[in-house]
Amino acid sequence: MGTMRANVFHGKGEISVEEVPRPHAGAGEAVIRVTLTTICGTDLHIVRGEYPVKPGLIIGHEPVGIIEEIGPGVTGYQIGDRVLVGAITPCGQCHACLSGHQAQCGHGGGYEALGGWRFGNTINGAQAEYLLVPQAQANLAKIPGELSDEQVVLLADIASTGFAGAESGAIKIGDAVVVFAQGPIGLCATVGAKLMGAALVIGVDGDDFRLQMARRMGADVALDYRAVDVVEEVRRLTGGGADVSIEALGTQQTFEQALRCLRPAGTLSSLGVYSGKLQIPYDAFAAGIGDHRIITTLCPGGKERMRRLMEMIRRERVDLTPMITHRFPLDNIVEAYQLFGERRDNVIKIAVKP
Amino acid sequence: MGTMRANVFHGKGEISVEEVPRPHAGAGEAVIRVTLTTICGTDLHIVRGEYPVKPGLIIGHEPVGIIEEIGPGVTGYQIGDRVLVGAITPCGQCHACLSGHQAQCGHGGGYEALGGWRFGNTINGAQAEYLLVPQAQANLAKIPGELSDEQVVLLADIASTGFAGAESGAIKIGDAVVVFAQGPIGLCATVGAKLMGAALVIGVDGDDFRLQMARRMGADVALDYRAVDVVEEVRRLTGGGADVSIEALGTQQTFEQALRCLRPAGTLSSLGVYSGKLQIPYDAFAAGIGDHRIITTLCPGGKERMRRLMEMIRRERVDLTPMITHRFPLDNIVEAYQLFGERRDNVIKIAVKP
Amino acid sequence: MGTMRANVFHGKGEISVEEVPRPHAGAGEAVIRVTLTTICGTDLHIVRGEYPVKPGLIIGHEPVGIIEEIGPGVTGYQIGDRVLVGAITPCGQCHACLSGHQAQCGHGGGYEALGGWRFGNTINGAQAEYLLVPQAQANLAKIPGELSDEQVVLLADIASTGFAGAESGAIKIGDAVVVFAQGPIGLCATVGAKLMGAALVIGVDGDDFRLQMARRMGADVALDYRAVDVVEEVRRLTGGGADVSIEALGTQQTFEQALRCLRPAGTLSSLGVYSGKLQIPYDAFAAGIGDHRIITTLCPGGKERMRRLMEMIRRERVDLTPMITHRFPLDNIVEAYQLFGERRDNVIKIAVKP
Amino acid sequence: MGTMRANVFHGKGEISVEEVPRPHAGAGEAVIRVTLTTICGTDLHIVRGEYPVKPGLIIGHEPVGIIEEIGPGVTGYQIGDRVLVGAITPCGQCHACLSGHQAQCGHGGGYEALGGWRFGNTINGAQAEYLLVPQAQANLAKIPGELSDEQVVLLADIASTGFAGAESGAIKIGDAVVVFAQGPIGLCATVGAKLMGAALVIGVDGDDFRLQMARRMGADVALDYRAVDVVEEVRRLTGGGADVSIEALGTQQTFEQALRCLRPAGTLSSLGVYSGKLQIPYDAFAAGIGDHRIITTLCPGGKERMRRLMEMIRRERVDLTPMITHRFPLDNIVEAYQLFGERRDNVIKIAVKP
Repeated sequence: MGTMRANVFHGKGEISVEEVPRPHAGAGEAVIRVTLTTICGTDLHIVRGEYPVKPGLIIGHEPVGIIEEIGPGVTGYQIGDRVLVGAITPCGQCHACLSGHQAQCGHGGGYEALGGWRFGNTINGAQAEYLLVPQAQANLAKIPGELSDEQVVLLADIASTGFAGAESGAIKIGDAVVVFAQGPIGLCATVGAKLMGAALVIGVDGDDFRLQMARRMGADVALDYRAVDVVEEVRRLTGGGADVSIEALGTQQTFEQALRCLRPAGTLSSLGVYSGKLQIPYDAFAAGIGDHRIITTLCPGGKERMRRLMEMIRRERVDLTPMITHRFPLDNIVEAYQLFGERRDNVIKIAVKP
Repeated sequence: MGTMRANVFHGKGEISVEEVPRPHAGAGEAVIRVTLTTICGTDLHIVRGEYPVKPGLIIGHEPVGIIEEIGPGVTGYQIGDRVLVGAITPCGQCHACLSGHQAQCGHGGGYEALGGWRFGNTINGAQAEYLLVPQAQANLAKIPGELSDEQVVLLADIASTGFAGAESGAIKIGDAVVVFAQGPIGLCATVGAKLMGAALVIGVDGDDFRLQMARRMGADVALDYRAVDVVEEVRRLTGGGADVSIEALGTQQTFEQALRCLRPAGTLSSLGVYSGKLQIPYDAFAAGIGDHRIITTLCPGGKERMRRLMEMIRRERVDLTPMITHRFPLDNIVEAYQLFGERRDNVIKIAVKP
Repeated sequence: MGTMRANVFHGKGEISVEEVPRPHAGAGEAVIRVTLTTICGTDLHIVRGEYPVKPGLIIGHEPVGIIEEIGPGVTGYQIGDRVLVGAITPCGQCHACLSGHQAQCGHGGGYEALGGWRFGNTINGAQAEYLLVPQAQANLAKIPGELSDEQVVLLADIASTGFAGAESGAIKIGDAVVVFAQGPIGLCATVGAKLMGAALVIGVDGDDFRLQMARRMGADVALDYRAVDVVEEVRRLTGGGADVSIEALGTQQTFEQALRCLRPAGTLSSLGVYSGKLQIPYDAFAAGIGDHRIITTLCPGGKERMRRLMEMIRRERVDLTPMITHRFPLDNIVEAYQLFGERRDNVIKIAVKP
Repeated sequence: MGTMRANVFHGKGEISVEEVPRPHAGAGEAVIRVTLTTICGTDLHIVRGEYPVKPGLIIGHEPVGIIEEIGPGVTGYQIGDRVLVGAITPCGQCHACLSGHQAQCGHGGGYEALGGWRFGNTINGAQAEYLLVPQAQANLAKIPGELSDEQVVLLADIASTGFAGAESGAIKIGDAVVVFAQGPIGLCATVGAKLMGAALVIGVDGDDFRLQMARRMGADVALDYRAVDVVEEVRRLTGGGADVSIEALGTQQTFEQALRCLRPAGTLSSLGVYSGKLQIPYDAFAAGIGDHRIITTLCPGGKERMRRLMEMIRRERVDLTPMITHRFPLDNIVEAYQLFGERRDNVIKIAVKP
């Protein structure tokens, strides 16, 4: 059957690159040889023991690769096709998917909370030489020849998630939008808000390099929360409150500020992964009758989503490569996790090459 | 100028029916002679000092009446026309109204939180013999001759709000819906959920008469929270969770249960007026990535909304008169407040006749 | 392999019940033993040579049955499960399906016009003892034990289509709706319009029995086009025009009248199958700047759609059995086509039992 | 009362700049001193007798100016405020406006087809020194100090209409869009499609300068219909059909091609003003069951729309000034009409200064 190198999670704080069995494609599946992947903030949560997965799992959920095996029942693909696979791999055939809620995929049955997120969560993930892709028919997105691996790898999760923050906010031409946190997801939300026609996009962070990246990726204003009262400043800049706030961090403070920045009848589009209880402040919420909307969104996946996002790169509407600040071989991924976890050296995203 | 009888708020716990000056119509305004009104739960909050209004204000916001005066610039109406006026009186001409957010009306300017709610809040209200209607052109809805005052008076607030709970939930044919609390608003949300095509509507309350009314108004199942674990029971009845939960009370407990009853990617449509901080439980919220939607809604107003709701009565799609359980003359309204406040005698709504 | 009885199309005007090979389930497929099916207006078009399919095809697309074989890769079902399968059988995994356009399914690839409609069109259909169900995981909808075959068979096509006419019209609480033609689809559109909250539903036809059925299925007014000027009458009843018109026949005349009945900014929801050029009259279309919407819809399919529709039956929101006016054994189906084609004996729908 | 110079329509082919009475503001109205206006294609239709207005009318509907008089009941404005007024002036208080259909405004009552378009249609228009603005509260949009008259004048009609073409098409991130005709409206539709996140925008025209302008305003591809088979080329470029076609001319040919360019379930967003009967070709329409949408749109107006569009200019998301190719004083407007009507000298839009 052969073996491969892969980054295996063994318990809190314990990951290592090891030789493990290579996967093979069953019915409806495919195996890709991973040519590029990356590390996500969620992977950090896993390694830190903040999000539980079972020991022995290969982690990572952002794969670019080349089709190596195609299982029975998968049509329209060839061995050797270069593909992008989203972090979320919907089956397309369960009640959730057929209702358009693909991230809450029930794998052929009903709904399952977060069920669409399988790679590096409930099945082996992408930080490996080979990756088994479930429901391959719905999830293998061919990469146009003119696009490099680095041009598309960030679409699998952070761009799909960040843009979805803008989409769930239903941003309209002329909107004023504020995005809380300018890490990888927040930067993509900033890009997404511009793409949907926002007049004014305000990026908020407390890190000089990220504020600079925010401007580079399209923020009209980059607010440093260390220097200004963010809520007051957003209210001033927007003349009374933002139409849409996007939360891209997952803390009580950013959630609350995102709500306080809104005009009446505004929308809080929430992307963050929260822990513990979340408070909705009574006053900022207009006692519950301010016609506010709080919309939460998990990364959209599936091959059609990936195709659309790749079109945005191909037509030069977006270039996310400036966000890839570092590159590591898979064998050094433990070192890459350290750098990423400590946010050293202005890291935004790290490309990992098996 | 003349005087009239009106229910005046003087401070916490102090209301009385008194002789006060009659209003007269300025430009863009009208005065109606009130022929029927009612008492709302919000009026109780005011009288109890839980929602602040300024002493000296006439309260009440659910008027049916006959046009007595028409100010300059108001066209298409005659003295003597019988009209219904919504609890919310949008101007139609501010940024909020022109964006479709009429409850957050800015009175010709920008957005103002809850700005569309003026009667008995920021201007004199409907528990009086005469009522000044601002922005009359946008707010006087002629009543079809075949409809009685009692048939339409509940449309001004509770039906418009309750139905909006269903509308904000975007209920679709085949949905399973749970409505928390079967007071006046909750009962109307139950009606609204049925009207929009829900397959299953579950009404929740802890009062025998209200559970009975829930079934009468269309709930398929009436759950008594004193007798069953509501979340567990809703999950059982729906096979995994409701598509939409409607919160119609305004407490931490009902809000939280409403969230816990949802399937992944479900919608919590919130109508309640909350006080203090509201907690979103981490687990029920899928850590913020369950594709949940929390939508809050204040009563839609304006003459077009009232016209549409009256059509529902006229075409016999809905009959709300069973919810009018008591009748009082305006001069006895203090007694009516006591009955209503203490929920005595199976009161749901009280018709008040000046 | 065995044989079975089936209704085979051999060319214009030529169908016969014959002994043909029984199908068997491959990967991702299932075979059901058909326990009830029916004849659709589209089947008539096929038999009359107005819609081309290849000779030798078994026709019919509305199956209820019992699972007989389950192919590899299909999970969560047992031999013997009773299921309903929609007329449209989306794959769930192509670009069209993943975009929510399941009726234009591209079978794992891109979009294909009408591609979701396969039974009795591009693959063997349901007027047979056994039926091969493609993409079984997405299309087998288990039938709740308390529902009979007759209660659910009309959901496969006509209810799903008719209700979709209302859904595509985005009918709102309080709308006035007119439905052109009260054949099987139009009657279901009438039902759907009521289910979504229309205040007034006007059914139009020229057949006494169908007008009577329209009233029985919920139309507030049934207009006989032989007796009144429909456009004028709709304008009178609605005070200026319907919010939504639903076209359920597929002729120039009904399409044009549907447009003429609308108020400005109204929606024409079109379900009919047209032949030849269709004209949009300049005046009724406000020269193209009346903010009109013309939305066309093919029957939604997939197991989630069928589940939702069955919930409507199970919760007693809808009973379509009055529309089943006749019953035939499969062996006499040619006779049933004659009756149905000639609209004899007040036929609406015919249940066919293999 | 004073007089002013204005461009008066006297009958087919007859316009002249004359001395006419100056308007004065009644209740709810304002008068502005026009500082810049322009000529629209619709004005040409009027002058050519193709769209009927009554002789004696001042034409033009795209005004920038300074408030000269404020009638009773209009608040929040000062004499001397610089304002933009949309071509469409909704009342905000009729059934149509309160339903969000402001272009079909019924002036305080019900719906009126095209009723929101009053300037230069049913009341005196903007090609004059002074302009009476009806429903001033809903329609006077203050211009930010940093924006020049030329930067905002095209927002009143062509940008609002063109962007609405994209909005009605519900363009999403990653869409492929084709825009038929690259005149003023079509160019703005091209801009709008990009603003909403289209990956690929194809502009179609048969004029070299307009094709060049299309590319300048953001079209990825400019197709010359004299040189290529547009439908075939769009299908090739999009890999099967556009997600959205925008029609911005108003002819049978462009309408039909717009439909033929679509993928199944695509949307035709129609902005053109058609004359005579319009044909929908049976095949391109998939016989009416291709899940197509045809959406028509008249220019959105009102001060909130204008505010939003001005924000797009102020935040430098859009610069429309390259489209102003010529400038004329009001007294020479007849000459300007000739140039514009003959499309001489690469004219796109002409700024007219009273």
